[in-house]
Amino acid sequence: MSFDQIIDRRGSHCVKWDMMEAIYGVDGDKGLAMWVADMDFRPPQCVLDAVQTQLDHGIIGYFGDDTKYREAIQWWMKERHNWTVQADHIFTTHGLVNGTAMCVDTFTEPGDGVVLFTPVYHAFAKVIKANNRRVVECEMPMSNGRYEMDFDTWDAQLDGSERMLILCSPHNPGGRVWTRDELLGVAAFAKRHKLILVSDEIHHDLVMPGHRHIPMSHIPGVEDRLIMMTATTKTFNIAGSHSGNVIIADPDLRAKFAQRMMGLGLSPNSFGLFMATAAYSPEGAAWTDELVAYLDGNRKLFDDAVNAIPGLYSMPLEATYLSWVDFDGTGMSRDEFTKRVEQDACIAVNHGPTFGKGGDSWLRFNIATPRARVQEAVDRLAKAFGDLQ
Amino acid sequence: MSFDQIIDRRGSHCVKWDMMEAIYGVDGDKGLAMWVADMDFRPPQCVLDAVQTQLDHGIIGYFGDDTKYREAIQWWMKERHNWTVQADHIFTTHGLVNGTAMCVDTFTEPGDGVVLFTPVYHAFAKVIKANNRRVVECEMPMSNGRYEMDFDTWDAQLDGSERMLILCSPHNPGGRVWTRDELLGVAAFAKRHKLILVSDEIHHDLVMPGHRHIPMSHIPGVEDRLIMMTATTKTFNIAGSHSGNVIIADPDLRAKFAQRMMGLGLSPNSFGLFMATAAYSPEGAAWTDELVAYLDGNRKLFDDAVNAIPGLYSMPLEATYLSWVDFDGTGMSRDEFTKRVEQDACIAVNHGPTFGKGGDSWLRFNIATPRARVQEAVDRLAKAFGDLQ
Repeated sequence: MSFDQIIDRRGSHCVKWDMMEAIYGVDGDKGLAMWVADMDFRPPQCVLDAVQTQLDHGIIGYFGDDTKYREAIQWWMKERHNWTVQADHIFTTHGLVNGTAMCVDTFTEPGDGVVLFTPVYHAFAKVIKANNRRVVECEMPMSNGRYEMDFDTWDAQLDGSERMLILCSPHNPGGRVWTRDELLGVAAFAKRHKLILVSDEIHHDLVMPGHRHIPMSHIPGVEDRLIMMTATTKTFNIAGSHSGNVIIADPDLRAKFAQRMMGLGLSPNSFGLFMATAAYSPEGAAWTDELVAYLDGNRKLFDDAVNAIPGLYSMPLEATYLSWVDFDGTGMSRDEFTKRVEQDACIAVNHGPTFGKGGDSWLRFNIATPRARVQEAVDRLAKAFGDLQ
Repeated sequence: MSFDQIIDRRGSHCVKWDMMEAIYGVDGDKGLAMWVADMDFRPPQCVLDAVQTQLDHGIIGYFGDDTKYREAIQWWMKERHNWTVQADHIFTTHGLVNGTAMCVDTFTEPGDGVVLFTPVYHAFAKVIKANNRRVVECEMPMSNGRYEMDFDTWDAQLDGSERMLILCSPHNPGGRVWTRDELLGVAAFAKRHKLILVSDEIHHDLVMPGHRHIPMSHIPGVEDRLIMMTATTKTFNIAGSHSGNVIIADPDLRAKFAQRMMGLGLSPNSFGLFMATAAYSPEGAAWTDELVAYLDGNRKLFDDAVNAIPGLYSMPLEATYLSWVDFDGTGMSRDEFTKRVEQDACIAVNHGPTFGKGGDSWLRFNIATPRARVQEAVDRLAKAFGDLQ
């Protein structure tokens, strides 16, 4: 497949292109949708074929034996992440927002603190608050132009009322691939503060050349407090299937989670199961390699062009397709730089403050789109901020 | 479409045909799968086309504007059930087991009693128990060969610790379409005992000629305690999409439910949304009429043949495609009549006791299959119980 192919998503009921006008006031015709974290690419052919096979058969009833589905997950995790997963450790939730919410619901009580290293994926805070838990924002300092951990400060910040830490690894929106030392630090921090550690690794397959993602399950000492979360939806661009995996090795945590899954009557839809089984395959792996190479090209183009605009700073993307751009150097108010991006450049982006503490002067750009569009976006940005040249 | 067409579901990952051997020991080759409540028919062409359109476009990202989806639901409820639904009263859960579970979770506390009129759909008790609530089984007496309500007995049975009543209307597995008087009785019972009333109407479209389903929302006096549940999945045989609708008119109940939906991070998968939008249409309506006529033919064939076997009694099916057969008159033990059905006749069915009090001597037969298979089933039953002739 060619990732260069422009596929018009307008009118396809997608949120990314069809709702940017309603939500951000970005013109629906002229606008470039660079917000919602899905891609403007088709999934690998094997994934589409899996749905086609189901459709050709035509009966879309209750799904039965999921052995092949679980084996596909096991194969992928071993093959791509050197991670041995037991089949019965896998729970399939309705995407990872639901997965995260289930963790919060199952393992914490109302009023408990849930720690986030901010800025971070906005849905975490949303589900924490909706469950009447407290968001404990540990702001990440920047060092050498990228986010780093600051455990000393955070140790002082915590007061013992915290029960859970939700880590985003690789990090959205900073694009960090956490090093082994950093992950060891996270593990020690979680142990020190007796926190359940939820590691959202939904971007684990989208890692740029030169970096290597380490699953938190490889870090010793947290086996008894660790919840891993992965999904096909981000890697293969099938978010519509609303499927995610919560993987729990610890028997006590797993038993509690299983009980909540049953209590909430959750079982997966068949489309997600068929697509995941097809995706976690050699064909899916080859496609992913091509995808990452393409995204890496987009990243270079975007970063070079954005960083050439005085006052703008794009954080180096080690993983994900979500570029995190700081407008602090422009000296402009948030309203002003946002207006220039949305109204002058006509680009819909995610606003920094929704990601929590530390996000105020930032915007998040989704670069998982044909390269011509990335080029168009940076051209528009250069023009919208042309007076800074 | 012809409902007579035999479509082999073996090897299609369906639970109904592929797991009957593992679960019931019914031979996978010779067996007839008459248990799980999905149909052996394709959905209407418009539903398959809706998935095909999405597939041809090829990008399966986050779903956006659901206005048309909500309008389709509104149209269907008005057109088919004379029920005016407000668009913002609709929540889309992951099927109605999840919908039921969400109601139990949201509106009751651990230890509370949840009332069921038994025998009734087995998943209710499962989610009640999994949430550490108590199942309060109010057994329905038989009168004139069908289930009826017995509020006097149930009034004496309840002790004030009950918080919710889950009604199955039309009734699964008894096939009853509750009359207006019966529904008025349910409403008064719910008010008298201060119960939240959850009305699962998933079978509301599958009503046999001569009967008319009345939505509980038409019954006065329960507006402030009523939760309605409907779905496309049963009517159109798309259970794999795991989509259901919880519809709440009361603003306080609705606000609480909305909060839990957010807390659990639940939003619908795009396949369910596309298919429902297509299904709730004039084409879907015409198909449903044909389906019901066909099911009515199956019902006649099945009932006549089963009731001709001495000792067997098939409860008159006023709605649903789930025939409820009593083996009490055979004088056989449950093990014996079950063995004859499963091993001698080679038919996989649902066992009565899983439906709660009153189900011991019964088995549930799913007759939503091409007529030739229903004929084969009754022939096999006649043979398996031939010594009773």
